[in-house]
Amino acid sequence: MEQGPGNRDSADDLSQARISAVLAAIEADEGAALAAALEPLHPADIADLLEQISAAERRALVALHPSAIDGDVLSELDEGVREEIIEALPRAALAEAVRELDTDDVVDILEDLETQDQAFILEALESDDRVAVESAMAWPEESAGRLMQAETVTAPEHWTVGQAIDHLRAAEWLPDQFYHVILVDPRHRPVGYVTLGRVLAARREVPLASITEDSFRTIEATRLQSEVALIFNKYHLISTPVVDGAGRLVGVITIDDAMIVLDDEHEEDLLRMAGVQSEAALSDSIFEAVRGRVPWLAVNLVTAVLASSVVGLFSGAIETLVALAVLMPIVASMGGNAGTQTMAVTVRALATRELTPANALRVVFREGAVGVMNGVIMGLGVGLVALLWFGTPMLGVVIALAMLGTLMVAALAGIAIPLLLDRLKIDPALASGPFVTTVTDVVGFFAFLGLASLVLL
Amino acid sequence: MEQGPGNRDSADDLSQARISAVLAAIEADEGAALAAALEPLHPADIADLLEQISAAERRALVALHPSAIDGDVLSELDEGVREEIIEALPRAALAEAVRELDTDDVVDILEDLETQDQAFILEALESDDRVAVESAMAWPEESAGRLMQAETVTAPEHWTVGQAIDHLRAAEWLPDQFYHVILVDPRHRPVGYVTLGRVLAARREVPLASITEDSFRTIEATRLQSEVALIFNKYHLISTPVVDGAGRLVGVITIDDAMIVLDDEHEEDLLRMAGVQSEAALSDSIFEAVRGRVPWLAVNLVTAVLASSVVGLFSGAIETLVALAVLMPIVASMGGNAGTQTMAVTVRALATRELTPANALRVVFREGAVGVMNGVIMGLGVGLVALLWFGTPMLGVVIALAMLGTLMVAALAGIAIPLLLDRLKIDPALASGPFVTTVTDVVGFFAFLGLASLVLL
Repeated sequence: MEQGPGNRDSADDLSQARISAVLAAIEADEGAALAAALEPLHPADIADLLEQISAAERRALVALHPSAIDGDVLSELDEGVREEIIEALPRAALAEAVRELDTDDVVDILEDLETQDQAFILEALESDDRVAVESAMAWPEESAGRLMQAETVTAPEHWTVGQAIDHLRAAEWLPDQFYHVILVDPRHRPVGYVTLGRVLAARREVPLASITEDSFRTIEATRLQSEVALIFNKYHLISTPVVDGAGRLVGVITIDDAMIVLDDEHEEDLLRMAGVQSEAALSDSIFEAVRGRVPWLAVNLVTAVLASSVVGLFSGAIETLVALAVLMPIVASMGGNAGTQTMAVTVRALATRELTPANALRVVFREGAVGVMNGVIMGLGVGLVALLWFGTPMLGVVIALAMLGTLMVAALAGIAIPLLLDRLKIDPALASGPFVTTVTDVVGFFAFLGLASLVLL
Repeated sequence: MEQGPGNRDSADDLSQARISAVLAAIEADEGAALAAALEPLHPADIADLLEQISAAERRALVALHPSAIDGDVLSELDEGVREEIIEALPRAALAEAVRELDTDDVVDILEDLETQDQAFILEALESDDRVAVESAMAWPEESAGRLMQAETVTAPEHWTVGQAIDHLRAAEWLPDQFYHVILVDPRHRPVGYVTLGRVLAARREVPLASITEDSFRTIEATRLQSEVALIFNKYHLISTPVVDGAGRLVGVITIDDAMIVLDDEHEEDLLRMAGVQSEAALSDSIFEAVRGRVPWLAVNLVTAVLASSVVGLFSGAIETLVALAVLMPIVASMGGNAGTQTMAVTVRALATRELTPANALRVVFREGAVGVMNGVIMGLGVGLVALLWFGTPMLGVVIALAMLGTLMVAALAGIAIPLLLDRLKIDPALASGPFVTTVTDVVGFFAFLGLASLVLL
């Protein structure tokens, strides 16, 4: 389908006109019109559409045209909406939808469901598929074993290109997508792989073992999916064999699945750094959204009270010189921002494994130096503002020095706290924010009000 | 290379012991030991190593063993370090390194270089490659045309499987990685594609046109790379033909390149939301890091002064009741956090195209409702804190109401500001932060201090 100039700005084929047509058909209760409006859409676009319309419209759509929800559409849906659709679907339509999926997609759907729905779907599968899904579910959550597809294309390591081609031609069934023929030893342990491009280009008598790829590596089924995504991205892999503890081939992970994991991990980091529960979706209900955000707001309330109690220590100074109350938010705000900058760089560098014991010390030193330079520049700026505003030179000097101290501490807290949390096996993206801003608020208020008490009063 | 249990925690093969061995060899000035330590490493690991050691160590490594820096290593390096290495490399070694690369990788390297180095590298290329690189450079920056590889594998639309296989076997040269045979019409316009798996599995007399994939779509060379990455991720593409304005095939983009773009876009969003220049790298110098962060700190200084001037309006009230100065940072801090939560959800939803005109109104309404509920919960909490702390019931009521109002405004600002910036074609990740926190600070101070002036004084 060619992307005409008309939709150059859009990443997909789901136009607003299309959504309107679907909603009109639902409104008019016309099943045939609804089917016609949905028919040209890719499953990913039908899923996007379902996520963008309201819950009532979703229920009406499913009731009017249940067969629009095939397995691929279910796979593409966000967890919350998917659960809703699965409840709304007639059981027969649900059974048919899951039967057509690859086992890795069934596993992905099952993971988020209640036990009762899980049992129904498992029973709906053909027995081969059920066994494959159940053995995938035996691997830990978030592991490579849950991400892989069980279907593999293999050849004995001593085969030639011709033998491999004859074998593929004779196969009754092949995976939808595969990119390598995996060479295995007699114990079914992968020992190399050959790209399909090379199989096609080589003469029939060439031994497969002579045209294997250097990029070959295996992944243990117990490894974290987030690690798998990093490995794919770093080493430019397309597909890679997954092995059990004994090194035997149990499945294959392909890059499209790794790309989805990478995307999810990024979303998680970005939302967690902003204090939002990582599974948040735009289709969440109001109640779910509140539940995802209140915990972090409550933590922030505690730390804000802590910072305010520092201000409370200097009530007397503020009563004497109210300019202190006017200027103190500037110091705290700048400290919080500088700390957040360093924290974001650090969290990202930890996530991509760019920050390691080999360079940690140098990076800490660099951030400290950056903090000093930022502090000097911003200290001069805020000192000038205070001088012009209140006409008291010493007030300018005090706030400039407080700014310098706060931005130094902000830089060091912004790198030290994520590093420490990482060492303690706590996700730095999740927990760094409250700690860093608490430190910068407390230090900012204390430095400014304390210094002012000493010098100005 | 199997990942043994010893390095299960690591996403790569670059151990600390390996880095130490490399540094020891550099220290001892032993070229042979250095070569031996680098030899087993993947180019991506050599690049990581170069990024983790100091600038002086990098120069020493290049001087001692320039041939360790091949084209693949150059491709993998961060921009800043790559420029440094290119300057340090003997010209002959540089010429050899770039000659072995695919044209899309040469384009990627050229983009970041000074004109003088660009000219040198272009001259080092063989003439075919030079023409391909120059025509790729003719496409706009950040476009699909710059991302694609010019090398394609095509077949006339009327060919059979057997003709395609014979053609591939006879080809003198094929791309390193290719996943489809693209069917083209007589004007070289792509009309479909066949996966290599299907070519291998089908009998020789089967027409290619009968086994094409539904997933086929083309991408215009002028499209933004960020859009291309979203399309790959959404529609699970592996490779896709790139066409010029007349629909003629000009190249192919593969998923590994799309995955790198997706990763870079995420990094940019995360850093921009935290106020860090998007190209920031851990290997930046202190000066580069300061330059990347001062602009946003300067913006924040201006907005913080604005918020402080609101406090200044109420100096009299603060002099009368110093508790106001103690409690006011709590309101501002909570507002800032709630606004950041909503902003992160919105920026992310805009980036992934989940937030569209179809659901914008419903999402705005939802966020408003979430703001009210958060405001009620946190208002009760902070009211109780104020009551217990200062023993004045009305002070508790005032701060509770101010909190409710601020969190409502925070929610609406957190969604409205990114939406508005997006409509104005400004990257919401870049510019939303300062606007949202300025709004929440100003509203928070004004609501709390204003209400207190009315009710308490």
